[in-house]
Amino acid sequence: MSCANKAEEVEKLLPPVASTPALAHALNVKQNSEQSNLSYDIVKSLTVEVGPRIPGSQGDKAAVAWAEAKFNELGFDKVYKEAVRVRNWERGFADAKVVSPFPQDLVITALGGSIATPESGLEAKVVMYDSIESLAAADKAEVEGNIVFLNTRMERDKAGRFYGKVVPNRVNGAVEAAKQGAHAVIIRSVGTDNSRFAHTGVMRYDDKVEKIPAGAISTADADNLEAMFSSQQDIILNINMQAKDAGWQTSYNVIGEFIGSEKPDEVILISAHLDSWDEGTGALDDGAGVGIVTAAAKLVKEAVGQPKRTIRVILYAAEEIGLVGGYQYARTNKDTLGNIIFAAESDFGAGQIYQLDTRFNEAVRNDPADLYAALEAMGVTLGNNTSGGGPDVSMLPNYGVPVLSLKQDGTYYFDFHHTPNDTLDKIKPEDIQQNQTVWAMITAYMAMSDFDPRPAPKK
Amino acid sequence: MSCANKAEEVEKLLPPVASTPALAHALNVKQNSEQSNLSYDIVKSLTVEVGPRIPGSQGDKAAVAWAEAKFNELGFDKVYKEAVRVRNWERGFADAKVVSPFPQDLVITALGGSIATPESGLEAKVVMYDSIESLAAADKAEVEGNIVFLNTRMERDKAGRFYGKVVPNRVNGAVEAAKQGAHAVIIRSVGTDNSRFAHTGVMRYDDKVEKIPAGAISTADADNLEAMFSSQQDIILNINMQAKDAGWQTSYNVIGEFIGSEKPDEVILISAHLDSWDEGTGALDDGAGVGIVTAAAKLVKEAVGQPKRTIRVILYAAEEIGLVGGYQYARTNKDTLGNIIFAAESDFGAGQIYQLDTRFNEAVRNDPADLYAALEAMGVTLGNNTSGGGPDVSMLPNYGVPVLSLKQDGTYYFDFHHTPNDTLDKIKPEDIQQNQTVWAMITAYMAMSDFDPRPAPKK
Repeated sequence: MSCANKAEEVEKLLPPVASTPALAHALNVKQNSEQSNLSYDIVKSLTVEVGPRIPGSQGDKAAVAWAEAKFNELGFDKVYKEAVRVRNWERGFADAKVVSPFPQDLVITALGGSIATPESGLEAKVVMYDSIESLAAADKAEVEGNIVFLNTRMERDKAGRFYGKVVPNRVNGAVEAAKQGAHAVIIRSVGTDNSRFAHTGVMRYDDKVEKIPAGAISTADADNLEAMFSSQQDIILNINMQAKDAGWQTSYNVIGEFIGSEKPDEVILISAHLDSWDEGTGALDDGAGVGIVTAAAKLVKEAVGQPKRTIRVILYAAEEIGLVGGYQYARTNKDTLGNIIFAAESDFGAGQIYQLDTRFNEAVRNDPADLYAALEAMGVTLGNNTSGGGPDVSMLPNYGVPVLSLKQDGTYYFDFHHTPNDTLDKIKPEDIQQNQTVWAMITAYMAMSDFDPRPAPKK
Repeated sequence: MSCANKAEEVEKLLPPVASTPALAHALNVKQNSEQSNLSYDIVKSLTVEVGPRIPGSQGDKAAVAWAEAKFNELGFDKVYKEAVRVRNWERGFADAKVVSPFPQDLVITALGGSIATPESGLEAKVVMYDSIESLAAADKAEVEGNIVFLNTRMERDKAGRFYGKVVPNRVNGAVEAAKQGAHAVIIRSVGTDNSRFAHTGVMRYDDKVEKIPAGAISTADADNLEAMFSSQQDIILNINMQAKDAGWQTSYNVIGEFIGSEKPDEVILISAHLDSWDEGTGALDDGAGVGIVTAAAKLVKEAVGQPKRTIRVILYAAEEIGLVGGYQYARTNKDTLGNIIFAAESDFGAGQIYQLDTRFNEAVRNDPADLYAALEAMGVTLGNNTSGGGPDVSMLPNYGVPVLSLKQDGTYYFDFHHTPNDTLDKIKPEDIQQNQTVWAMITAYMAMSDFDPRPAPKK
């Protein structure tokens, strides 16, 4: 039996899926999206015309203005913004030198939120641990007065599952090292590349523990530093990082809507975050998401005309420093969260989507069988019903708001994540187009149907 | 007929190759080399214990001391050094910012030898050309007073053949831009990566043309800057590079020998260069070469015992700034160059060898047929007889000295060449081992035979 014949045979065994008018809209927008580079053009515009946009910075302000202008240019019915107070942090100069036994420079970057070293730098012996647990278990006398080096390797994975295992080094390394009496902490970058780009990202202090400077060295520098330990000599490092807290600033969640023609109060919420770290141009994180969800909404409007339900695109402020825009949105709009049919965020780069996870009312979850089948035919499998929905919507299920996640191939995402190397050339036009198409299909279907997955099962 | 049978059939058609005692030595060292990581261990030692080593710097001095110590540690019969006067250049701070219309930083590095900008930077409009020829052909009024951006893309190639086409941007860009009245030149990095590492490398001034600052921006930044041109607005750039000429220093060609037991005055000269650029640890360029030729000599000594001819390993000074050590060697030793049976340099990273080119006396070139056949069986094909031999030995055929080149797979070499990302992790142990084995086999064969390819055909 030929492969083609076999596929036909299998198809006959499947139960027929009732095709709804909503699906026709989804398939219509699919066809249009496959001829469109809109999502790529949007992220190109953001990275070229704005570039880096750390919360509260001039770049962040430029991004807010860019987003409003872009929504207007694309003909959204309603464009507005909601204030988000953000703490502005400035990276400043960062430098690390092995003083002895093998003098050479290491590539270092400050972790987001770190305090500075003294102006003349901080010089001490380095003590290396393979995990935060080994550090916590170490004899305090071994750590005291030294610089802790947390040297945990991160493995590649399509779903990025090792990020969660290694990222505590970055977030909690300073607190754990300070508890043991260290004067500073440096971590092996939380990344899967072999390169000299250091990966930044947010870190936290604990008011009850002394604050110490925290930086990340590149994976290549971590290898180099690790190799120096085989000399059996004390390794003396000098680190100098002049980061600073630059105070409160106002940023904004920027919102564009196509207003529903029949049910304007029923809202399809698709989102991304507008801010980025400051060393790259934030192409993958999260320019891609900005392009994908903005293009999806626009393509639905073009293919379908005015949607029955409202499509709301939110570009959140200050995701990188703690989902600040996401939490603010939930507070500002707490009385109307019940209107949201579902919420979702695209924030994992531009790798192709291979799975749809949901957090829908179990009783109706399988009702859009025709949509699920159409996605399955494109290689997007229906997954679990315990989705978080993405960082900035992750708090919404607590209010009963359904969420969904479109899982992307993240095999190479952590090569570039939070580095200077997060730039437009890392996005393949065909990959971001596939994302745009899947988001547009789901948005079209949901905006044109009566399917209602509310309320979300509580976490 | 099975594939194996076919190979047997083909073999029967080939003329028999006489096997010499020299080949037995080559096959003996091959067996040992395939169990040895010596070349990798040597480049690891150099990159970890010394790191960057730009000519005349502290790192360069440390590298010279390291090389002498390494030769002694490996039991070379004679270890010595020959002085090379080098001009020391210090990179200093480098910074580039698009001032308008889209303010953002670009990753820039000064080209080796560039003068500094004024201390407060240099601000001007950018004019873009796709090649140095387009710049030369441009209307002077268009260029005058501006910053020239040479934006030529470089293609990947196993043999790195596109380097020669693009590198004139780097070497001659400042002179050509100054002739047209530009105040500075920036080039798209001469590299095949998509990243934010800028590629440095030597540039030249012409005493008859005004000196202007010259830098390279990364390929990702070149894409970004190019995209800004579609706005049709003037692009104003501010560049600030504080490079300086730090005067004359003494460096050294470091030399280790195993003295020939029967013909000590007949010399097998294998070499690499010890210096590197200052931003990476010089693993591929040319720590790999240092490891390969040093290990090859040592492995021959271990497998063969004292060689009949002298094996001389030269680690040249200051290749990067104009083959300074190579030219100095030829001057210092001009009276004894006639003793060199052949010379060769390894200086193209650690990719596997696939071809042997020679510049041997035509009349005897094919005499070592058994060696060529043994190499062919390992995937190393005999190529042309017009080899240059490698940068630091390229002047020797003018004195009648035969040379050979072992061509390496350079597909990814120009991803890392002259960047901060030229680090140990870019070397695959199995690849550098293959290099070590091929070099050791040829060295063993030549040191144990009477084969004499002198004199080299003149260029």
